[in-house]
Amino acid sequence: MKVEYLNPFIAATRNVLSTMARLDSTPGKPYLKNGRSTFGDVTGVIGMASETVAGNLVISFRKSCILAVVAKMFMEEPRAEIDDEVMDAVGEITNIICGGAKAGLAKLGLAFDLATPTMIKGRDIMIRYPVDSPIVVIPFATDAGEFVIEANLAERR
Amino acid sequence: MKVEYLNPFIAATRNVLSTMARLDSTPGKPYLKNGRSTFGDVTGVIGMASETVAGNLVISFRKSCILAVVAKMFMEEPRAEIDDEVMDAVGEITNIICGGAKAGLAKLGLAFDLATPTMIKGRDIMIRYPVDSPIVVIPFATDAGEFVIEANLAERR
Repeated sequence: MKVEYLNPFIAATRNVLSTMARLDSTPGKPYLKNGRSTFGDVTGVIGMASETVAGNLVISFRKSCILAVVAKMFMEEPRAEIDDEVMDAVGEITNIICGGAKAGLAKLGLAFDLATPTMIKGRDIMIRYPVDSPIVVIPFATDAGEFVIEANLAERR
Repeated sequence: MKVEYLNPFIAATRNVLSTMARLDSTPGKPYLKNGRSTFGDVTGVIGMASETVAGNLVISFRKSCILAVVAKMFMEEPRAEIDDEVMDAVGEITNIICGGAKAGLAKLGLAFDLATPTMIKGRDIMIRYPVDSPIVVIPFATDAGEFVIEANLAERR
């Protein structure tokens, strides 16, 4: 995955969390994913596909972080657990971030359609992608805790 | 998801397991998925996306079944555990089944691109998709144990 492809994902992530949940998020230094386990307690995965590129965007939240995000999105008290509505919110966030990144990536000549997101509950769940696509992880810090986005968008060979 | 869309998935599944692993599989009666947990011990998920349709194909194997499939694919003794190579094989199977179904679905006027597959290890892992896409489950019986495919392909609204 080319480094220049990261910026649209970072910009879309910060923008979506800022507008949907009024939450500032600070990106850390990107690194290549080592191992295959989920970082957070709830994870959204969305596929990006066209004839020329393929990959996934993953966003994985620590429990404290997603519960704060959802409370702010819905203007309610934080929930105690990751329930179905929280998982649906993760799907919506995943979808909107990737949709936002898509516009930025189009300017770099990358066009693709988005699949529907999949949401997975549980930390350290083993998730694996085809081995030939290195996965770049971008950690984010917020006042409510950590989350990461992971992306492995690559041109098809 | 329209019932007529099921047949290309069923045909591709049987064909892929027959040719790749010399394994006969018998489809049972399709049903709507109730709950959101993984059926098997290892699960492949792939996104299908175009401007007109979106959805996922899921294939979820009981451990005994996938270990037998992989042993037959690689012409080796069955492994004891679901390791990285087994997970990669699940991804390949998911990819090839969906690629086969894609050809059949094109004849029904449905065109889409495939994302890269995601493989998830563990039974009863909570996986959720956007709530407006009902998921059809097709159970399959084999001499080596059970697996299911699940699909929620639908036209975009």
